[in-house]
Amino acid sequence: RYGLAEKEDQVGVVTGLAWTSVGGEILSIEALRLPGKGRMKTTGKLGDVMKESIDAASSYVRSIAPTIGVKPPRFEKWDIHVHVPDGATPKDGPSAGLAMVTAIVSVLTGIPVRKDIAMTGEVTLRGNASAIGGLKEKLLAALRAGVKTVLIPQENEKDLPEIPDNVKEGLEIIPVTHVSEVLKLALVRQPEAVDWDEEAEDAAAAAKALQTGDGPGATAH
Amino acid sequence: RYGLAEKEDQVGVVTGLAWTSVGGEILSIEALRLPGKGRMKTTGKLGDVMKESIDAASSYVRSIAPTIGVKPPRFEKWDIHVHVPDGATPKDGPSAGLAMVTAIVSVLTGIPVRKDIAMTGEVTLRGNASAIGGLKEKLLAALRAGVKTVLIPQENEKDLPEIPDNVKEGLEIIPVTHVSEVLKLALVRQPEAVDWDEEAEDAAAAAKALQTGDGPGATAH
Amino acid sequence: RYGLAEKEDQVGVVTGLAWTSVGGEILSIEALRLPGKGRMKTTGKLGDVMKESIDAASSYVRSIAPTIGVKPPRFEKWDIHVHVPDGATPKDGPSAGLAMVTAIVSVLTGIPVRKDIAMTGEVTLRGNASAIGGLKEKLLAALRAGVKTVLIPQENEKDLPEIPDNVKEGLEIIPVTHVSEVLKLALVRQPEAVDWDEEAEDAAAAAKALQTGDGPGATAH
Amino acid sequence: RYGLAEKEDQVGVVTGLAWTSVGGEILSIEALRLPGKGRMKTTGKLGDVMKESIDAASSYVRSIAPTIGVKPPRFEKWDIHVHVPDGATPKDGPSAGLAMVTAIVSVLTGIPVRKDIAMTGEVTLRGNASAIGGLKEKLLAALRAGVKTVLIPQENEKDLPEIPDNVKEGLEIIPVTHVSEVLKLALVRQPEAVDWDEEAEDAAAAAKALQTGDGPGATAH
Amino acid sequence: RYGLAEKEDQVGVVTGLAWTSVGGEILSIEALRLPGKGRMKTTGKLGDVMKESIDAASSYVRSIAPTIGVKPPRFEKWDIHVHVPDGATPKDGPSAGLAMVTAIVSVLTGIPVRKDIAMTGEVTLRGNASAIGGLKEKLLAALRAGVKTVLIPQENEKDLPEIPDNVKEGLEIIPVTHVSEVLKLALVRQPEAVDWDEEAEDAAAAAKALQTGDGPGATAH
Amino acid sequence: RYGLAEKEDQVGVVTGLAWTSVGGEILSIEALRLPGKGRMKTTGKLGDVMKESIDAASSYVRSIAPTIGVKPPRFEKWDIHVHVPDGATPKDGPSAGLAMVTAIVSVLTGIPVRKDIAMTGEVTLRGNASAIGGLKEKLLAALRAGVKTVLIPQENEKDLPEIPDNVKEGLEIIPVTHVSEVLKLALVRQPEAVDWDEEAEDAAAAAKALQTGDGPGATAH
Ligand SMILES: [Ca+2]
Ligand SMILES: [Ca+2]
Ligand SMILES: [Ca+2]
Ligand SMILES: [Ca+2]
Ligand SMILES: [Ca+2]
Ligand SMILES: [Ca+2]
Ligand SMILES: [Ca+2]
Ligand SMILES: [Ca+2]
Ligand SMILES: [Ca+2]
Ligand SMILES: [Ca+2]
Ligand SMILES: [Ca+2]
Ligand SMILES: [Ca+2]
Repeated sequence: RYGLAEKEDQVGVVTGLAWTSVGGEILSIEALRLPGKGRMKTTGKLGDVMKESIDAASSYVRSIAPTIGVKPPRFEKWDIHVHVPDGATPKDGPSAGLAMVTAIVSVLTGIPVRKDIAMTGEVTLRGNASAIGGLKEKLLAALRAGVKTVLIPQENEKDLPEIPDNVKEGLEIIPVTHVSEVLKLALVRQPEAVDWDEEAEDAAAAAKALQTGDGPGATAH
Repeated sequence: RYGLAEKEDQVGVVTGLAWTSVGGEILSIEALRLPGKGRMKTTGKLGDVMKESIDAASSYVRSIAPTIGVKPPRFEKWDIHVHVPDGATPKDGPSAGLAMVTAIVSVLTGIPVRKDIAMTGEVTLRGNASAIGGLKEKLLAALRAGVKTVLIPQENEKDLPEIPDNVKEGLEIIPVTHVSEVLKLALVRQPEAVDWDEEAEDAAAAAKALQTGDGPGATAH
Repeated sequence: RYGLAEKEDQVGVVTGLAWTSVGGEILSIEALRLPGKGRMKTTGKLGDVMKESIDAASSYVRSIAPTIGVKPPRFEKWDIHVHVPDGATPKDGPSAGLAMVTAIVSVLTGIPVRKDIAMTGEVTLRGNASAIGGLKEKLLAALRAGVKTVLIPQENEKDLPEIPDNVKEGLEIIPVTHVSEVLKLALVRQPEAVDWDEEAEDAAAAAKALQTGDGPGATAH
Repeated sequence: RYGLAEKEDQVGVVTGLAWTSVGGEILSIEALRLPGKGRMKTTGKLGDVMKESIDAASSYVRSIAPTIGVKPPRFEKWDIHVHVPDGATPKDGPSAGLAMVTAIVSVLTGIPVRKDIAMTGEVTLRGNASAIGGLKEKLLAALRAGVKTVLIPQENEKDLPEIPDNVKEGLEIIPVTHVSEVLKLALVRQPEAVDWDEEAEDAAAAAKALQTGDGPGATAH
Repeated sequence: RYGLAEKEDQVGVVTGLAWTSVGGEILSIEALRLPGKGRMKTTGKLGDVMKESIDAASSYVRSIAPTIGVKPPRFEKWDIHVHVPDGATPKDGPSAGLAMVTAIVSVLTGIPVRKDIAMTGEVTLRGNASAIGGLKEKLLAALRAGVKTVLIPQENEKDLPEIPDNVKEGLEIIPVTHVSEVLKLALVRQPEAVDWDEEAEDAAAAAKALQTGDGPGATAH
Repeated sequence: RYGLAEKEDQVGVVTGLAWTSVGGEILSIEALRLPGKGRMKTTGKLGDVMKESIDAASSYVRSIAPTIGVKPPRFEKWDIHVHVPDGATPKDGPSAGLAMVTAIVSVLTGIPVRKDIAMTGEVTLRGNASAIGGLKEKLLAALRAGVKTVLIPQENEKDLPEIPDNVKEGLEIIPVTHVSEVLKLALVRQPEAVDWDEEAEDAAAAAKALQTGDGPGATAH
């Protein structure tokens, strides 16, 4: 059912690669940003490990928010919904971590994701890409689905010798060590950083509150 | 028990098609909008996958709210209750997704749903219709119930050759690829879009707050 | 234990009919309205389906609140507690839906329920009465308990030929299709509707808030 | 372990009677009222049915609050903790309902409970006493524990012929039909009612809020 | 692992005695008071009965707060964390109740607990000490650990004849009936009571609020 | 997979040592501090005991906050996320307690953790290091991973004689009794304490609130 990669670059839609008992599969990860209250919703019959990988992806993105142009208080005004169709198939595991980060960054910045790139890799809280299992099956699924480029964790380069030649010829396989490389390759343009200094903001907010409160007393009459 | 489609066009009532161990069945999906706090309630012995399909439908509708004439902050003032009778029969699966979207749009806009249309199809967070199982049994149930028109995902057109001729003659079967087509066909009239610019609204709210606070200090006495 | 119907007309007490493994039984459904925060509490060892039927009954009543004289914001100031004695016997199923609606309307309006009427029937979110099982056993229980009149869903009229003659002679059996008929028959007097226009109320509240805030700035001095 | 009834009249301590697999037992129900936020806490390895009986008792007491001298908003300022020692023995069933009501009324009013009275009986949301099982075993436990008087539901009078004569001679057994009789007998003095008119209170609160807000605008300068 | 009692008097650290399948054991109960919001956190793989005993201890302490010098509103500004190492060993049962009360009183008042005293005993919501099981095993564990004095419930005095003479000679065993005796013996100094009259405080708070609000309106201009 | 210790000193990244059925393992514990509301999130398929060890570590750090330069109210403005990769491997047990404390202190102070130090040890609410199991397997894992220095609880010194000589020669093994020693050894520089007096702060806040409220009334006009 997921044999076709998305047909155009879209915001919040990322092609992940999963490895199931019936072989490799393409996952079309969908994220939405909604006006809200900082909540994360996940659907698609996701197991606990995949849900945790979304939590970790979300915390990582919050930790680098200013570098993608998002001031942290903005998070309290949005909800994010991550859905992985189809809704009836159980999915689990941490290997969609890089794709989750990419989907979340895309909806937060409004920058589309390149449709011809797929990716697999666990992500740590520092944004490091770490090794996944079932590389061969995932690459086969990507090839069948018409994907051109696949990002894999550098830790999985050791598995490349056992990948069939026709797969390695049919796909551009790019090893990555960190989310920053993934975003450079997968987003159609790069987000601009914004200044953010937590203590300065706190001090400014406190000063403003003080001024608003004192103003009338000090200047009126 | 569900052999009869609804007798008149109603707001929030949509005819879905389910596939159970005892064959195809018509589901009469009922949604209500209530003054509230942005909560979603679901009843009718629904399984986790069907509940998630309601979550996904709800997020999709929130994401397109201005296009159906609803400003996003309105969601925080309403509760939505989706019930699928009868209350004692377990129901599950993602294939009522299109019907859930239609029911939610109907209650939010107050526009009735055509009573002679049934529909089946999973929905993604982007509003795409995706394939479902048990098409034959669902169409048979629609025919038995006196339905005239059935909307199915275009991804299921491949299953039409194996549908009996009498079914195909007795029903108008319309393949759809996106919720937008479903709403055009199923609502008795189309909602009008409303302007909504999140950042402009935020700025306006901030300006107004500032003015209210500063006004007295600047002009009084 | 439930062989005796209530001895006088009371607010919030409704006689329902249940069908259990040991035959038909009378349920004395009790509802209370308390100063509170819009919460619903249920007790009496109720199964999930019966709890959901109370949720559906509650949403239906909220959706028709103005027609029974209750302005919707009132709901946020009250809690409702529905208890079905005795507390040690498990109960489940959707067939007390009509009785739940009646009990909730009674406590919200303060209008007593006729003590000599029992009722059975599932209810939809639109207030329609739908078919229940075990009609014969339920009617027998009503007869044994001294009930005079029983309201049943019109969809169950098809089951009447198989009901023993002595039961049909001993009870007035009234088929109903909608909650509105139930309330006409079961309440000792009818509630009066109150005007309620959500948008007008919102506008009025906004205007008042504006006036309170702007008043001093615009008119003082 | 529970062979000794309490030695003096105390606020919030009520002697209940339980029936377990090892025979009848005395339960020393303890309630505390604490400054808080309207929460109910229960401890003592209580089963779901006993917890629900505490919920029902609590709602009943809230519904009659003014008749025991407590204005309903007071509930939002107190927490109540009900504990049934000893903490390691599982307890369940609805038959401590009357005792729960009595304990809650006692802590809310500060009126002590007579130490020489034990009681058993389920309670409905209207405060009616309803039948319990194991009457003989419970009365034997009461006798062994030195209790003088036992309140039982009138619905259990039918069980008295099978109670041994020495038990009936050693105990004053008083059948009751309603909580009001229980409170008259078990509290060392009767609470005084307080006036409470929900709508009048709401109107007064609204008027005061209005005055506070409008006052300056109308009269200042 | 718990063979050594704490080496100095500490705030919030109390030596309890447990009885497990492998014999008696010393528990080093640790409580912390943190700036917070009135929350109770418990860790150490505690079973439900031990958690409930902490709830009961906490409510008892709140109920006597003024007698230990703590005004009740203070509770809403603190969190309490109770930990029972080691973290990997399951622990359960109500017999650490007296120790929990002592630990909580110690952290609330900042008064250290005597390091050479161990204690065992269930506690009721009124602060009564009630009987525990496994007295012999617990006393042996205390002796092995170098404890000098053990507080036990007076209800367990009946078990002393079966305690070996060397244990009774090596330990000072003090029967207690109430928490008040425990605190006198276990705290290095006694807390001072503070005046607290809930209704007077409420009235004062209301008066102050009134004055703050009315002041400007009544006296300005 | 965890054969390589981190390559540079980082804030919030600590090398812990775990003992599993397949031998000893290195855990790379990652903590993040995010703008937030005082919430703790944990991911990495952690068992209940490991989650509790994080709770205990967190409470300990809150209890010593001023000594590491953090004023307690700051905690309500931050969330902390602790992740232990990889996400698919279940982990449990209390022996990462010292590492959890170190990771939390590091993210709160922004001081990096020395990359060449690993540590194992349970931690109590007072910050004491207590014994862990599987010391030999953990030390072997540390050696394999290229770790130079390992901190162990002094309570485990008794296990050193059974550690192979080559392990003891290849590693600097430092026994510790308290978190304070761990922080001195593991942080690249020591945090500076800040003054904090809860009661003084409360009094100051109250005085300021009073002044702000009274100021206008007392001095204006
Ligand atoms: Ca790594
Ligand atoms: Ca991995
Ligand atoms: Ca698709
Ligand atoms: Ca599908
Ligand atoms: Ca129907
Ligand atoms: Ca039905
Ligand atoms: Ca009754
Ligand atoms: Ca009963
Ligand atoms: Ca006792
Ligand atoms: Ca006990
Ligand atoms: Ca220790
Ligand atoms: Ca340990």
